[in-house]
Amino acid sequence: MRVALLTNPRSERVRGVASLRRRAVRARRGRFVVEGPHAVRELMSYAGSEVLEAYLTADAWAAHPDLARLGHEHGVPLYECTDQVLEVMGEAAHPQGVLAVARPVDVTAQSAVGAIGDGFVVVLSHVRDPGNAGTVIRAADAFGAAAVLISSESVDVYNPKVVRSTAGSLFHLPVSVGTEVQEIIDLLREAGVALWAADGSGPTSLPQADLSGPHAWLLGNEAWGLPEDVQAACDEAVSVPIVGHAESLNLAMAATVCLHASSMARGAG
Amino acid sequence: MRVALLTNPRSERVRGVASLRRRAVRARRGRFVVEGPHAVRELMSYAGSEVLEAYLTADAWAAHPDLARLGHEHGVPLYECTDQVLEVMGEAAHPQGVLAVARPVDVTAQSAVGAIGDGFVVVLSHVRDPGNAGTVIRAADAFGAAAVLISSESVDVYNPKVVRSTAGSLFHLPVSVGTEVQEIIDLLREAGVALWAADGSGPTSLPQADLSGPHAWLLGNEAWGLPEDVQAACDEAVSVPIVGHAESLNLAMAATVCLHASSMARGAG
Repeated sequence: MRVALLTNPRSERVRGVASLRRRAVRARRGRFVVEGPHAVRELMSYAGSEVLEAYLTADAWAAHPDLARLGHEHGVPLYECTDQVLEVMGEAAHPQGVLAVARPVDVTAQSAVGAIGDGFVVVLSHVRDPGNAGTVIRAADAFGAAAVLISSESVDVYNPKVVRSTAGSLFHLPVSVGTEVQEIIDLLREAGVALWAADGSGPTSLPQADLSGPHAWLLGNEAWGLPEDVQAACDEAVSVPIVGHAESLNLAMAATVCLHASSMARGAG
Repeated sequence: MRVALLTNPRSERVRGVASLRRRAVRARRGRFVVEGPHAVRELMSYAGSEVLEAYLTADAWAAHPDLARLGHEHGVPLYECTDQVLEVMGEAAHPQGVLAVARPVDVTAQSAVGAIGDGFVVVLSHVRDPGNAGTVIRAADAFGAAAVLISSESVDVYNPKVVRSTAGSLFHLPVSVGTEVQEIIDLLREAGVALWAADGSGPTSLPQADLSGPHAWLLGNEAWGLPEDVQAACDEAVSVPIVGHAESLNLAMAATVCLHASSMARGAG
Protein backbone atom coordinates (compact mmCIF):
# COMPACT_ATOMS: atom_id res chain seq x y z
CA MET A 1 0.00 0.00 0.00
CA ARG A 2 2.11 2.87 -1.29
CA VAL A 3 -0.39 5.52 -0.35
CA ALA A 4 0.81 8.91 -1.48
CA LEU A 5 3.75 11.24 -1.94
CA LEU A 6 4.03 13.71 0.92
CA THR A 7 5.79 16.94 0.06
CA ASN A 8 4.44 19.52 2.52
CA PRO A 9 6.54 19.69 5.72
CA ARG A 10 3.91 21.95 7.29
CA SER A 11 0.95 19.63 6.77
CA GLU A 12 -1.13 18.53 9.74
CA ARG A 13 0.03 14.93 9.34
CA VAL A 14 3.70 15.87 9.35
CA ARG A 15 3.33 18.17 12.33
CA GLY A 16 1.37 15.45 14.11
CA VAL A 17 4.25 12.98 13.78
CA ALA A 18 6.80 15.64 14.76
CA SER A 19 4.83 16.39 17.93
CA LEU A 20 5.49 12.82 19.13
CA ARG A 21 8.92 14.11 20.20
CA ARG A 22 7.09 15.34 23.33
CA ARG A 23 6.45 12.80 26.08
CA ALA A 24 3.04 14.22 26.95
CA VAL A 25 1.89 13.93 23.32
CA ARG A 26 3.16 10.35 23.06
CA ALA A 27 1.33 9.42 26.26
CA ARG A 28 -1.93 11.11 25.22
CA ARG A 29 -1.97 9.72 21.69
CA GLY A 30 -0.54 6.29 22.57
CA ARG A 31 2.03 6.17 19.81
CA PHE A 32 5.73 6.70 19.25
CA VAL A 33 8.27 7.09 16.47
CA VAL A 34 10.93 4.64 15.26
CA GLU A 35 13.67 5.97 12.97
CA GLY A 36 16.13 4.35 10.58
CA PRO A 37 15.91 1.27 8.34
CA HIS A 38 17.36 -1.21 10.84
CA ALA A 39 15.10 -0.23 13.74
CA VAL A 40 11.99 -0.08 11.52
CA ARG A 41 12.85 -3.53 10.10
CA GLU A 42 13.06 -4.95 13.64
CA LEU A 43 9.81 -3.20 14.60
CA MET A 44 7.95 -4.68 11.62
CA SER A 45 9.47 -8.13 12.11
CA TYR A 46 8.91 -8.44 15.86
CA ALA A 47 5.92 -6.16 16.52
CA GLY A 48 4.27 -5.88 13.09
CA SER A 49 0.75 -5.62 14.49
CA GLU A 50 1.63 -2.44 16.40
CA VAL A 51 2.88 -0.48 13.38
CA LEU A 52 0.42 2.21 12.32
CA GLU A 53 2.23 3.76 9.35
CA ALA A 54 5.66 4.07 7.80
CA TYR A 55 7.36 6.85 5.81
CA LEU A 56 10.18 6.36 3.32
CA THR A 57 12.04 8.71 1.00
CA ALA A 58 12.39 7.60 -2.63
CA ASP A 59 16.04 6.72 -2.01
CA ALA A 60 15.21 4.60 1.04
CA TRP A 61 12.40 2.90 -0.88
CA ALA A 62 14.94 1.80 -3.50
CA ALA A 63 17.64 0.89 -0.98
CA HIS A 64 15.42 -1.22 1.33
CA PRO A 65 12.87 -3.16 -0.76
CA ASP A 66 12.40 -5.59 2.16
CA LEU A 67 10.77 -2.82 4.21
CA ALA A 68 7.97 -2.38 1.65
CA ARG A 69 7.51 -6.18 1.61
CA LEU A 70 7.36 -6.33 5.40
CA GLY A 71 4.94 -3.40 5.43
CA HIS A 72 2.62 -5.11 2.96
CA GLU A 73 2.73 -8.33 4.96
CA HIS A 74 1.50 -6.53 8.06
CA GLY A 75 -0.96 -4.22 6.29
CA VAL A 76 1.04 -1.11 7.19
CA PRO A 77 0.17 2.00 5.15
CA LEU A 78 3.41 3.15 3.49
CA TYR A 79 3.95 6.76 2.50
CA GLU A 80 6.62 8.09 0.25
CA CYS A 81 7.87 11.48 1.39
CA THR A 82 10.53 14.04 0.59
CA ASP A 83 13.78 14.27 2.57
CA GLN A 84 12.54 17.51 4.06
CA VAL A 85 9.28 15.97 5.29
CA LEU A 86 11.17 13.11 6.91
CA GLU A 87 13.55 15.51 8.62
CA VAL A 88 10.71 17.54 10.08
CA MET A 89 8.90 14.41 11.34
CA GLY A 90 11.92 12.81 12.95
CA GLU A 91 14.38 13.63 15.66
CA ALA A 92 17.57 11.96 14.42
CA ALA A 93 20.31 14.04 12.82
CA HIS A 94 20.65 11.31 10.17
CA PRO A 95 17.25 9.58 9.90
CA GLN A 96 18.41 7.56 6.85
CA GLY A 97 15.12 8.06 5.06
CA VAL A 98 12.90 5.73 7.09
CA LEU A 99 10.47 6.42 9.92
CA ALA A 100 7.52 4.52 11.40
CA VAL A 101 4.79 5.35 13.89
CA ALA A 102 3.75 2.54 16.22
CA ARG A 103 1.62 1.78 19.24
CA PRO A 104 3.44 1.06 22.53
CA VAL A 105 5.12 -2.36 22.68
CA ASP A 106 5.61 -2.63 26.44
CA VAL A 107 4.26 -5.43 28.61
CA THR A 108 3.12 -5.38 32.25
CA ALA A 109 5.68 -5.76 35.04
CA GLN A 110 3.93 -9.03 36.01
CA SER A 111 4.45 -10.40 32.53
CA ALA A 112 8.10 -9.27 32.43
CA VAL A 113 8.79 -10.96 35.77
CA GLY A 114 6.88 -14.03 34.57
CA ALA A 115 9.30 -14.37 31.65
CA ILE A 116 12.31 -14.95 33.90
CA GLY A 117 12.24 -18.76 34.15
CA ASP A 118 15.71 -19.64 35.43
CA GLY A 119 17.18 -16.67 33.59
CA PHE A 120 17.77 -13.05 34.56
CA VAL A 121 16.19 -9.65 34.10
CA VAL A 122 17.33 -6.03 34.33
CA VAL A 123 15.62 -3.32 36.37
CA LEU A 124 16.29 0.38 35.69
CA SER A 125 15.49 2.62 38.64
CA HIS A 126 15.66 6.41 38.18
CA VAL A 127 17.84 6.11 35.07
CA ARG A 128 17.62 9.45 33.30
CA ASP A 129 19.96 9.45 30.30
CA PRO A 130 18.25 8.21 27.11
CA GLY A 131 21.49 6.81 25.67
CA ASN A 132 22.16 4.81 28.82
CA ALA A 133 18.65 3.34 28.97
CA GLY A 134 18.79 2.37 25.30
CA THR A 135 22.25 0.83 25.59
CA VAL A 136 21.18 -1.25 28.59
CA ILE A 137 18.20 -2.61 26.61
CA ARG A 138 20.60 -3.46 23.77
CA ALA A 139 22.97 -5.22 26.18
CA ALA A 140 20.05 -7.08 27.80
CA ASP A 141 19.06 -8.37 24.37
CA ALA A 142 22.61 -9.29 23.33
CA PHE A 143 23.31 -11.18 26.55
CA GLY A 144 20.02 -13.04 26.68
CA ALA A 145 18.16 -11.32 29.51
CA ALA A 146 14.55 -12.50 29.79
CA ALA A 147 13.14 -8.98 30.17
CA VAL A 148 13.85 -5.36 31.10
CA LEU A 149 11.76 -3.50 33.68
CA ILE A 150 11.98 0.29 33.55
CA SER A 151 10.62 1.95 36.67
CA SER A 152 8.13 4.80 36.39
CA GLU A 153 10.81 7.11 37.84
CA SER A 154 13.06 6.61 34.79
CA VAL A 155 13.38 8.15 31.32
CA ASP A 156 10.51 7.38 28.91
CA VAL A 157 11.44 4.32 26.85
CA TYR A 158 9.58 5.85 23.87
CA ASN A 159 11.84 8.91 23.86
CA PRO A 160 13.31 8.90 20.32
CA LYS A 161 16.87 8.87 21.70
CA VAL A 162 16.14 5.77 23.80
CA VAL A 163 14.48 4.02 20.87
CA ARG A 164 17.46 4.82 18.64
CA SER A 165 20.07 3.64 21.21
CA THR A 166 18.35 0.26 21.52
CA ALA A 167 19.18 -0.38 17.82
CA GLY A 168 16.03 -2.50 17.44
CA SER A 169 16.51 -4.46 20.67
CA LEU A 170 13.43 -2.73 22.13
CA PHE A 171 11.36 -5.09 19.96
CA HIS A 172 13.29 -8.28 20.77
CA LEU A 173 12.47 -8.88 24.41
CA PRO A 174 9.69 -7.98 26.87
CA VAL A 175 10.13 -4.46 28.26
CA SER A 176 7.84 -3.15 30.99
CA VAL A 177 7.37 0.52 31.87
CA GLY A 178 5.37 2.61 34.31
CA THR A 179 5.65 0.52 37.47
CA GLU A 180 7.30 1.99 40.58
CA VAL A 181 10.59 0.37 41.50
CA GLN A 182 9.28 -0.77 44.91
CA GLU A 183 6.41 -2.62 43.25
CA ILE A 184 8.86 -4.22 40.80
CA ILE A 185 10.95 -5.40 43.75
CA ASP A 186 7.87 -6.88 45.44
CA LEU A 187 7.00 -8.80 42.27
CA LEU A 188 10.56 -10.14 41.94
CA ARG A 189 10.66 -11.16 45.62
CA GLU A 190 7.35 -13.02 45.28
CA ALA A 191 8.84 -14.87 42.29
CA GLY A 192 11.87 -15.90 44.38
CA VAL A 193 14.35 -13.95 42.27
CA ALA A 194 17.72 -12.91 43.76
CA LEU A 195 18.28 -9.15 43.61
CA TRP A 196 21.77 -7.86 42.72
CA ALA A 197 22.41 -4.13 42.94
CA ALA A 198 25.05 -3.00 40.44
CA ASP A 199 27.01 -0.52 42.54
CA GLY A 200 30.54 0.80 41.98
CA SER A 201 31.21 0.64 45.71
CA GLY A 202 29.42 -2.65 46.36
CA PRO A 203 31.28 -5.05 48.68
CA THR A 204 30.76 -8.13 46.49
CA SER A 205 33.15 -8.30 43.54
CA LEU A 206 31.46 -9.41 40.30
CA PRO A 207 33.52 -12.64 39.94
CA GLN A 208 32.28 -13.64 43.43
CA ALA A 209 28.59 -13.06 42.67
CA ASP A 210 26.51 -16.23 42.26
CA LEU A 211 24.79 -15.79 38.92
CA SER A 212 23.64 -19.40 38.51
CA GLY A 213 20.01 -19.02 39.63
CA PRO A 214 17.22 -16.64 38.58
CA HIS A 215 18.37 -13.10 39.33
CA ALA A 216 17.69 -9.44 38.61
CA TRP A 217 20.28 -6.71 38.07
CA LEU A 218 19.18 -3.39 39.54
CA LEU A 219 20.73 -0.27 38.04
CA GLY A 220 20.22 3.19 39.54
CA ASN A 221 20.56 6.84 38.66
CA GLU A 222 23.71 7.97 36.80
CA ALA A 223 24.67 10.46 39.53
CA TRP A 224 23.42 9.00 42.79
CA GLY A 225 22.75 5.32 42.12
CA LEU A 226 19.89 3.39 43.71
CA PRO A 227 17.59 4.90 46.37
CA GLU A 228 18.50 3.67 49.87
CA ASP A 229 15.34 1.61 50.33
CA VAL A 230 15.99 -0.16 47.02
CA GLN A 231 19.60 -0.88 48.01
CA ALA A 232 18.37 -2.24 51.31
CA ALA A 233 15.95 -4.55 49.52
CA CYS A 234 18.73 -6.11 47.42
CA ASP A 235 20.51 -9.31 48.40
CA GLU A 236 23.95 -7.98 47.57
CA ALA A 237 25.63 -4.89 46.09
CA VAL A 238 27.98 -6.03 43.36
CA SER A 239 30.87 -3.99 41.91
CA VAL A 240 32.92 -4.51 38.79
CA PRO A 241 36.60 -4.65 39.88
CA ILE A 242 38.52 -1.54 38.80
CA VAL A 243 42.30 -1.73 38.63
CA GLY A 244 43.39 1.65 37.18
CA HIS A 245 42.89 5.18 38.50
CA ALA A 246 39.39 5.50 37.02
CA GLU A 247 36.85 6.45 39.62
CA SER A 248 34.16 4.23 38.19
CA LEU A 249 32.53 2.89 35.06
CA ASN A 250 29.58 4.72 33.61
CA LEU A 251 26.15 3.13 33.89
CA ALA A 252 26.08 1.58 30.42
CA MET A 253 29.58 0.12 30.81
CA ALA A 254 28.80 -1.37 34.24
CA ALA A 255 25.55 -2.86 32.93
CA THR A 256 27.33 -4.32 29.91
CA VAL A 257 29.93 -6.07 32.07
CA CYS A 258 27.37 -7.39 34.58
CA LEU A 259 24.97 -8.71 31.92
CA HIS A 260 27.87 -10.29 30.04
CA ALA A 261 28.84 -12.07 33.27
CA SER A 262 25.27 -13.38 33.67
CA SER A 263 25.36 -14.60 30.09
CA MET A 264 28.70 -16.38 30.66
CA ALA A 265 27.42 -17.95 33.88
CA ARG A 266 24.66 -19.56 31.80
CA GLY A 267 27.16 -21.13 29.43
CA ALA A 268 27.14 -18.65 26.53
CA GLY A 269 30.27 -18.63 24.41
CA MET B 1 47.11 33.22 42.24
CA ARG B 2 43.52 34.40 42.01
CA VAL B 3 44.21 36.75 39.16
CA ALA B 4 41.10 38.67 38.25
CA LEU B 5 37.33 38.61 37.86
CA LEU B 6 36.33 38.16 34.23
CA THR B 7 32.91 39.50 33.36
CA ASN B 8 33.05 40.27 29.62
CA PRO B 9 31.98 37.27 27.49
CA ARG B 10 33.12 39.12 24.38
CA SER B 11 36.69 39.77 25.52
CA GLU B 12 39.60 38.55 23.43
CA ARG B 13 40.63 36.07 26.12
CA VAL B 14 37.18 34.52 26.36
CA ARG B 15 36.81 34.26 22.61
CA GLY B 16 40.29 32.76 22.42
CA VAL B 17 39.34 29.93 24.78
CA ALA B 18 36.01 29.42 22.98
CA SER B 19 37.82 29.05 19.65
CA LEU B 20 39.57 25.92 21.00
CA ARG B 21 36.36 24.10 20.15
CA ARG B 22 37.76 23.95 16.60
CA ARG B 23 40.30 21.22 15.85
CA ALA B 24 42.42 23.46 13.58
CA VAL B 25 42.71 26.10 16.31
CA ARG B 26 43.67 23.49 18.92
CA ALA B 27 46.35 22.10 16.62
CA ARG B 28 47.75 25.53 15.72
CA ARG B 29 47.82 26.86 19.26
CA GLY B 30 48.81 23.58 20.94
CA ARG B 31 46.24 23.70 23.70
CA PHE B 32 42.88 22.23 24.61
CA VAL B 33 40.04 22.67 27.09
CA VAL B 34 39.05 20.50 30.05
CA GLU B 35 35.63 21.07 31.62
CA GLY B 36 34.08 20.19 34.96
CA PRO B 37 35.52 19.90 38.48
CA HIS B 38 36.31 16.17 38.33
CA ALA B 39 38.18 16.28 35.01
CA VAL B 40 40.09 19.46 35.99
CA ARG B 41 41.05 17.85 39.30
CA GLU B 42 42.46 14.81 37.48
CA LEU B 43 44.26 17.07 34.98
CA MET B 44 45.93 19.07 37.77
CA SER B 45 46.80 15.96 39.77
CA TYR B 46 48.23 13.85 36.93
CA ALA B 47 49.46 16.46 34.43
CA GLY B 48 49.86 19.58 36.57
CA SER B 49 52.81 20.90 34.57
CA GLU B 50 50.72 21.08 31.38
CA VAL B 51 47.96 23.28 32.82
CA LEU B 52 48.16 26.84 31.50
CA GLU B 53 45.20 28.46 33.27
CA ALA B 54 41.97 27.63 35.02
CA TYR B 55 38.62 29.42 35.28
CA LEU B 56 36.12 29.04 38.09
CA THR B 57 32.81 30.70 38.88
CA ALA B 58 32.39 32.04 42.42
CA ASP B 59 30.11 29.11 43.25
CA ALA B 60 32.63 26.56 41.98
CA TRP B 61 35.41 28.32 43.89
CA ALA B 62 33.46 27.83 47.10
CA ALA B 63 32.36 24.29 46.28
CA HIS B 64 35.83 22.96 45.28
CA PRO B 65 38.49 24.53 47.51
CA ASP B 66 40.86 21.68 46.59
CA LEU B 67 41.03 22.96 43.00
CA ALA B 68 42.45 26.31 44.12
CA ARG B 69 44.97 24.45 46.32
CA LEU B 70 46.00 22.19 43.43
CA GLY B 71 46.27 25.20 41.13
CA HIS B 72 48.54 27.02 43.58
CA GLU B 73 50.71 23.93 43.96
CA HIS B 74 51.34 23.80 40.23
CA GLY B 75 51.60 27.56 39.68
CA VAL B 76 48.45 27.66 37.58
CA PRO B 77 46.93 31.14 37.12
CA LEU B 78 43.36 30.94 38.42
CA TYR B 79 40.66 33.29 37.14
CA GLU B 80 37.28 33.88 38.66
CA CYS B 81 34.64 34.42 36.04
CA THR B 82 30.90 34.84 35.71
CA ASP B 83 28.61 31.95 34.73
CA GLN B 84 28.09 33.63 31.39
CA VAL B 85 31.82 33.85 30.64
CA LEU B 86 32.28 30.19 31.51
CA GLU B 87 29.37 29.19 29.28
CA VAL B 88 30.82 31.07 26.32
CA MET B 89 34.28 29.55 26.80
CA GLY B 90 33.14 25.96 27.19
CA GLU B 91 31.31 23.42 25.14
CA ALA B 92 29.45 21.40 27.78
CA ALA B 93 25.75 21.99 28.36
CA HIS B 94 26.45 21.83 32.12
CA PRO B 95 30.07 22.95 32.63
CA GLN B 96 29.63 22.94 36.44
CA GLY B 97 31.58 26.17 36.78
CA VAL B 98 35.12 24.90 36.15
CA LEU B 99 37.27 24.97 33.01
CA ALA B 100 41.01 24.68 32.37
CA VAL B 101 43.25 25.20 29.36
CA ALA B 102 46.17 22.80 29.00
CA ARG B 103 48.94 21.78 26.65
CA PRO B 104 48.61 18.38 24.94
CA VAL B 105 49.23 15.40 27.23
CA ASP B 106 49.81 12.73 24.58
CA VAL B 107 52.95 10.60 24.27
CA THR B 108 54.61 9.12 21.19
CA ALA B 109 53.41 5.80 19.81
CA GLN B 110 56.86 4.36 20.62
CA SER B 111 56.47 5.37 24.24
CA ALA B 112 52.91 3.98 24.44
CA VAL B 113 54.04 0.63 23.01
CA GLY B 114 57.04 0.69 25.35
CA ALA B 115 54.68 0.88 28.33
CA ILE B 116 53.09 -2.51 27.58
CA GLY B 117 55.38 -4.79 29.66
CA ASP B 118 53.41 -8.01 29.94
CA GLY B 119 50.15 -6.10 29.90
CA PHE B 120 47.84 -4.96 27.13
CA VAL B 121 47.06 -1.84 25.12
CA VAL B 122 44.14 -0.57 23.04
CA VAL B 123 44.41 0.73 19.47
CA LEU B 124 41.62 2.85 17.94
CA SER B 125 41.62 2.82 14.14
CA HIS B 126 39.23 5.15 12.29
CA VAL B 127 36.99 5.59 15.35
CA ARG B 128 34.88 8.67 14.68
CA ASP B 129 32.39 9.12 17.51
CA PRO B 130 33.75 11.28 20.35
CA GLY B 131 31.67 9.51 23.00
CA ASN B 132 32.96 6.11 21.89
CA ALA B 133 36.61 7.19 21.90
CA GLY B 134 36.25 8.74 25.34
CA THR B 135 34.45 5.73 26.78
CA VAL B 136 37.14 3.38 25.47
CA ILE B 137 39.84 5.47 27.18
CA ARG B 138 37.81 5.32 30.39
CA ALA B 139 37.46 1.53 30.08
CA ALA B 140 41.18 1.17 29.29
CA ASP B 141 41.96 3.05 32.50
CA ALA B 142 39.45 1.12 34.62
CA PHE B 143 40.65 -2.27 33.43
CA GLY B 144 44.36 -1.52 33.71
CA ALA B 145 45.46 -1.18 30.08
CA ALA B 146 49.06 0.04 29.81
CA ALA B 147 48.26 2.62 27.10
CA VAL B 148 45.81 3.72 24.39
CA LEU B 149 46.98 4.43 20.83
CA ILE B 150 44.61 6.53 18.72
CA SER B 151 45.43 6.39 15.02
CA SER B 152 45.73 9.59 13.01
CA GLU B 153 42.60 8.52 11.08
CA SER B 154 40.44 8.77 14.24
CA VAL B 155 38.57 11.52 16.07
CA ASP B 156 40.77 14.14 17.78
CA VAL B 157 41.31 13.10 21.40
CA TYR B 158 41.28 16.82 22.40
CA ASN B 159 37.74 17.26 21.05
CA PRO B 160 35.83 18.54 24.13
CA LYS B 161 33.31 15.69 23.83
CA VAL B 162 36.11 13.09 23.90
CA VAL B 163 37.79 14.78 26.86
CA ARG B 164 34.49 14.86 28.74
CA SER B 165 33.64 11.20 28.02
CA THR B 166 36.99 10.06 29.42
CA ALA B 167 35.91 11.41 32.84
CA GLY B 168 39.53 12.23 33.72
CA SER B 169 40.96 8.92 32.49
CA LEU B 170 42.72 10.78 29.66
CA PHE B 171 45.25 11.93 32.30
CA HIS B 172 45.70 8.54 33.99
CA LEU B 173 47.48 6.48 31.35
CA PRO B 174 49.71 7.11 28.32
CA VAL B 175 47.65 8.05 25.24
CA SER B 176 49.31 8.46 21.85
CA VAL B 177 47.80 10.28 18.88
CA GLY B 178 48.72 11.16 15.31
CA THR B 179 50.35 7.93 14.17
CA GLU B 180 48.88 5.97 11.25
CA VAL B 181 47.39 2.63 12.21
CA GLN B 182 49.82 0.69 9.98
CA GLU B 183 52.78 2.26 11.74
CA ILE B 184 51.22 1.43 15.11
CA ILE B 185 50.88 -2.19 13.98
CA ASP B 186 54.52 -2.29 12.89
CA LEU B 187 55.63 -1.01 16.30
CA LEU B 188 53.49 -3.59 18.12
CA ARG B 189 54.79 -6.41 15.91
CA GLU B 190 58.39 -5.38 16.55
CA ALA B 191 57.64 -5.49 20.27
CA GLY B 192 56.26 -9.05 19.94
CA VAL B 193 52.72 -8.09 20.96
CA ALA B 194 49.80 -10.32 19.91
CA LEU B 195 47.15 -8.41 17.91
CA TRP B 196 43.47 -9.13 18.60
CA ALA B 197 40.89 -7.52 16.33
CA ALA B 198 37.61 -6.89 18.18
CA ASP B 199 35.10 -7.83 15.49
CA GLY B 200 31.43 -8.77 15.91
CA SER B 201 31.78 -11.47 13.27
CA GLY B 202 35.21 -12.70 14.34
CA PRO B 203 35.61 -16.50 14.36
CA THR B 204 37.31 -16.64 17.78
CA SER B 205 34.88 -16.35 20.67
CA LEU B 206 36.14 -14.09 23.48
CA PRO B 207 36.28 -16.87 26.11
CA GLN B 208 38.58 -18.82 23.76
CA ALA B 209 41.02 -15.93 23.21
CA ASP B 210 44.38 -16.32 24.96
CA LEU B 211 44.77 -13.09 26.91
CA SER B 212 47.64 -14.24 29.11
CA GLY B 213 50.54 -12.62 27.22
CA PRO B 214 51.18 -9.06 26.03
CA HIS B 215 48.41 -8.16 23.59
CA ALA B 216 46.73 -5.27 21.82
CA TRP B 217 42.99 -4.86 21.19
CA LEU B 218 42.30 -3.22 17.82
CA LEU B 219 38.96 -1.44 17.46
CA GLY B 220 37.72 -0.09 14.14
CA ASN B 221 35.19 2.31 12.72
CA GLU B 222 31.65 2.28 14.18
CA ALA B 223 30.05 1.51 10.80
CA TRP B 224 32.57 -0.55 8.86
CA GLY B 225 35.06 -1.88 11.41
CA LEU B 226 38.77 -2.27 10.72
CA PRO B 227 40.32 -1.70 7.27
CA GLU B 228 41.06 -4.99 5.49
CA ASP B 229 44.83 -4.64 5.68
CA VAL B 230 44.60 -4.04 9.43
CA GLN B 231 42.37 -7.08 9.86
CA ALA B 232 44.83 -9.14 7.85
CA ALA B 233 47.68 -7.99 10.09
CA CYS B 234 45.89 -9.19 13.25
CA ASP B 235 46.52 -12.61 14.77
CA GLU B 236 42.85 -13.32 15.38
CA ALA B 237 39.45 -11.65 15.04
CA VAL B 238 37.64 -12.01 18.35
CA SER B 239 33.88 -11.64 18.88
CA VAL B 240 31.87 -11.24 22.06
CA PRO B 241 29.29 -14.06 22.10
CA ILE B 242 25.76 -12.75 21.50
CA VAL B 243 22.84 -14.91 22.57
CA GLY B 244 19.74 -12.78 21.89
CA HIS B 245 18.40 -11.28 18.68
CA ALA B 246 20.67 -8.21 18.87
CA GLU B 247 22.72 -7.76 15.74
CA SER B 248 25.82 -6.65 17.60
CA LEU B 249 27.18 -4.61 20.46
CA ASN B 250 28.15 -1.02 19.85
CA LEU B 251 31.85 -0.13 19.84
CA ALA B 252 32.03 1.10 23.43
CA MET B 253 30.18 -1.97 24.75
CA ALA B 254 32.40 -4.41 22.83
CA ALA B 255 35.53 -2.61 24.03
CA THR B 256 34.30 -2.66 27.61
CA VAL B 257 33.69 -6.42 27.54
CA CYS B 258 37.03 -7.20 25.82
CA LEU B 259 39.08 -5.00 28.16
CA HIS B 260 37.29 -6.43 31.17
CA ALA B 261 38.23 -9.91 29.95
CA SER B 262 41.89 -8.85 29.63
CA SER B 263 41.76 -7.48 33.15
CA MET B 264 40.23 -10.72 34.47
CA ALA B 265 42.84 -12.81 32.65
CA ARG B 266 45.49 -10.92 34.65
CA GLY B 267 43.86 -11.81 37.91
CA ALA B 268 41.86 -8.67 38.70
CA GLY B 269 38.90 -9.15 41.00
